[in-house]
Amino acid sequence: MNYSVDDTICAPATSSGGAICVVRVSGSRCFEAVDSVVRLRHGSAAAAQGFTVRFGVVDGLDEVLVSVFRAPHSYTGEDMAEISCHASDYIVRELLRRLCASGCRLAQAGEFTRRAFTAGKMDLSQAEAVADLIAADSQAAHQLAFSQLRGAYSRKLNELRRQIVELSALMELELDFSEEELEFADRRKLSVLAGAALEETRRLADSFRAGNAFKKGIPVAIVGAVNSGKSTLLNALLGENRAIVSDIPGTTRDTVEETLVLDGITFRFIDTAGLRDTPEEVERMGIERSLEQMDKASVVVVLLDALSPAAELEKVVARVREHIRPDTRVIWARSKVDLAQGSTSLPGLPEVLDISALTGYGLDSLKKAIASDATRELKAADGLLVTNQRHQEALAAAAEDLARFLEGLATSLPTDLLSEDLRSATRHLGTIFGEVTPDNVLGEIFGRFCIGK
Amino acid sequence: MNYSVDDTICAPATSSGGAICVVRVSGSRCFEAVDSVVRLRHGSAAAAQGFTVRFGVVDGLDEVLVSVFRAPHSYTGEDMAEISCHASDYIVRELLRRLCASGCRLAQAGEFTRRAFTAGKMDLSQAEAVADLIAADSQAAHQLAFSQLRGAYSRKLNELRRQIVELSALMELELDFSEEELEFADRRKLSVLAGAALEETRRLADSFRAGNAFKKGIPVAIVGAVNSGKSTLLNALLGENRAIVSDIPGTTRDTVEETLVLDGITFRFIDTAGLRDTPEEVERMGIERSLEQMDKASVVVVLLDALSPAAELEKVVARVREHIRPDTRVIWARSKVDLAQGSTSLPGLPEVLDISALTGYGLDSLKKAIASDATRELKAADGLLVTNQRHQEALAAAAEDLARFLEGLATSLPTDLLSEDLRSATRHLGTIFGEVTPDNVLGEIFGRFCIGK
Repeated sequence: MNYSVDDTICAPATSSGGAICVVRVSGSRCFEAVDSVVRLRHGSAAAAQGFTVRFGVVDGLDEVLVSVFRAPHSYTGEDMAEISCHASDYIVRELLRRLCASGCRLAQAGEFTRRAFTAGKMDLSQAEAVADLIAADSQAAHQLAFSQLRGAYSRKLNELRRQIVELSALMELELDFSEEELEFADRRKLSVLAGAALEETRRLADSFRAGNAFKKGIPVAIVGAVNSGKSTLLNALLGENRAIVSDIPGTTRDTVEETLVLDGITFRFIDTAGLRDTPEEVERMGIERSLEQMDKASVVVVLLDALSPAAELEKVVARVREHIRPDTRVIWARSKVDLAQGSTSLPGLPEVLDISALTGYGLDSLKKAIASDATRELKAADGLLVTNQRHQEALAAAAEDLARFLEGLATSLPTDLLSEDLRSATRHLGTIFGEVTPDNVLGEIFGRFCIGK
Repeated sequence: MNYSVDDTICAPATSSGGAICVVRVSGSRCFEAVDSVVRLRHGSAAAAQGFTVRFGVVDGLDEVLVSVFRAPHSYTGEDMAEISCHASDYIVRELLRRLCASGCRLAQAGEFTRRAFTAGKMDLSQAEAVADLIAADSQAAHQLAFSQLRGAYSRKLNELRRQIVELSALMELELDFSEEELEFADRRKLSVLAGAALEETRRLADSFRAGNAFKKGIPVAIVGAVNSGKSTLLNALLGENRAIVSDIPGTTRDTVEETLVLDGITFRFIDTAGLRDTPEEVERMGIERSLEQMDKASVVVVLLDALSPAAELEKVVARVREHIRPDTRVIWARSKVDLAQGSTSLPGLPEVLDISALTGYGLDSLKKAIASDATRELKAADGLLVTNQRHQEALAAAAEDLARFLEGLATSLPTDLLSEDLRSATRHLGTIFGEVTPDNVLGEIFGRFCIGK
């Protein structure tokens, strides 16, 4: 971003369409610009108190409401106004043109939030949470972003950093008062403290896998032989969900086809349509292709066709067991139970759900099974999962520093080298808050925001 | 609309997407509902002054701003709040759900504006202007809608109605004071006044043709023989326009292909792609097809290919002259002048523009020529054109009443019959303001609005 922070910026904060649009203005010449574009019925924006709304007319263009926020009590920390006009592209365009003619310029993507960050209204992880909050399309993704916006995440990381800074202080103390090697007792204490910090740092870094899945949707594969009822099941699951989503007006989703929200968590169904249709080697080939897809999934639903001979099903079970990753949750389901006579004898599986996509029998139990692990994990995390790759990388780098510190401690490296490891870990954690983040990184982060945020 | 006006209603007022969304709440239990959903940092919505903004938190969901408007000083005339939240479908959906759990219900399309109408905040023509204002995509359409919103149009119609009511009063006076026939002098005065009112009513009813064209785009046909450069010209005109439109971010249009804004007025290009391509009868057949299209156009641009023999062009000119409607504006243009040697001798046309779609030569003059009549007409109308079919029908009906009155006056019909004609004219004009408009008509009008307006 090459534009001056002294500029007064403006941008639409709402999307095109709807009944009203809000145009945001922020910067030192904000009220001046607003007053030259909007004729308020009473007084002027410049004279108005903060947190008040005025009715006004934009000549020949629109009747508007102007909300006034005075520095530092605004989103950006600067003087700000929000002009609420009728939602017409023509009006918004003309309003922006007039504001620009009165000394404003159009804002860059994320520039309002960047100014909030610069003014110290929020740290970088909170600013990033704003973008995540807007993008969140499930309760889980929303909960993680909101917790990050509210600062719970920052407090957690700050506590971790405080521990490392304390370690540093202990080290520095040694440096100040003695050129001698550290005492054994101190060394042991340092080692325990650093070990705990390392464990916590790693835990947070590793939580990215789960956090990212909650944010982007947990991958689920439905596998099974051709004609075992995969598509019918998926349609049955999605169909019900569609009905729920369309209950509230204006909330249609672009691609509902492969995404399902269960218990507030988004699940992303991996396309396993690659099953071959050659009549002969159906079982073998079909399963081969599914096995490849299974590797990407956190949850695998294995459909066992109630109409197939037990020998064939045993082959399916054997192959899944052979290939499944140990941390993948496997759900065994006996499909088409509405058509089956009696029960198929199934080869020693811990639990098999009887389902019928056609009649809906067993679908609720299946949904519960799919969601149960994730629900438990989300609850345990209490909103404190890493959802941002940048943070994951910073945490992983800090973990490396801490591991190097512990190794150095064990091999009695000189104190100043050890101190440098701790300082490096602190710096890495600091980048998460944006304390030592270079301009180009900031540009990249805020460039991903929408205009007007 | 079958829902009670006593309900407290809520709806998103902004479109999905963007940085923020605004949820509107209106009705007697508005503040109660807001306070049970939003925890304000200071005080409560119920205790807040009108025209103030408060920061608040929706538990586990979002940080929001709440603008408070107290009856009758609000859009609807009722107690109202606007909750400005982060623009996530999840947040908006959940916010609406909680408001509905706290005693609100989702608003119908146009219900906020309907309440504004019911509360007497605006008349029906102003309410309709709100919808037109939002839909306006050119300066001209916008200007007409804004003028209507601001009441200039209502004042004009009210003045007309006042004249007719005055006529009525004169008549009633006669009824009160004498059972005799009207005096000759009074009859003459009434006739002059009624004639003036009729003329004005007809003028307004007739202005619908122009007003509707300004609102929906003025139809333009580019006609000419095959290969006379029609498509190239259209592309050249649209191409430049596209560049201008895309100057401002976020204002892309869905279908720019056949619409062009010149001098703030939208022109809609009628598809004349029906020209036959058979080499032999090219001239005759091509022109035949174009002639059909010409009938729908307000403006016809006739392309005369500078490379064609004069004899062929004469045929084109003769055919156009033969078929053109007298009120259609015809622009003669000599195309491909960049390729032509010297000038074609053209058969006695008033003015011919030399143009080259390839080099851009003459395009500005052509645009000016296309827009000039409409620009003049718009200026002369001063924002007072009928743009609404419902109004046109009411005016036409009132004009019929007045004509019947004049006829009755001439044939000395009894005074009470004459009076009834005038009352009927007044009633018809009154429907434009919504004074005597039945519920089902209101339902239809407001049903065309978007949710949240």
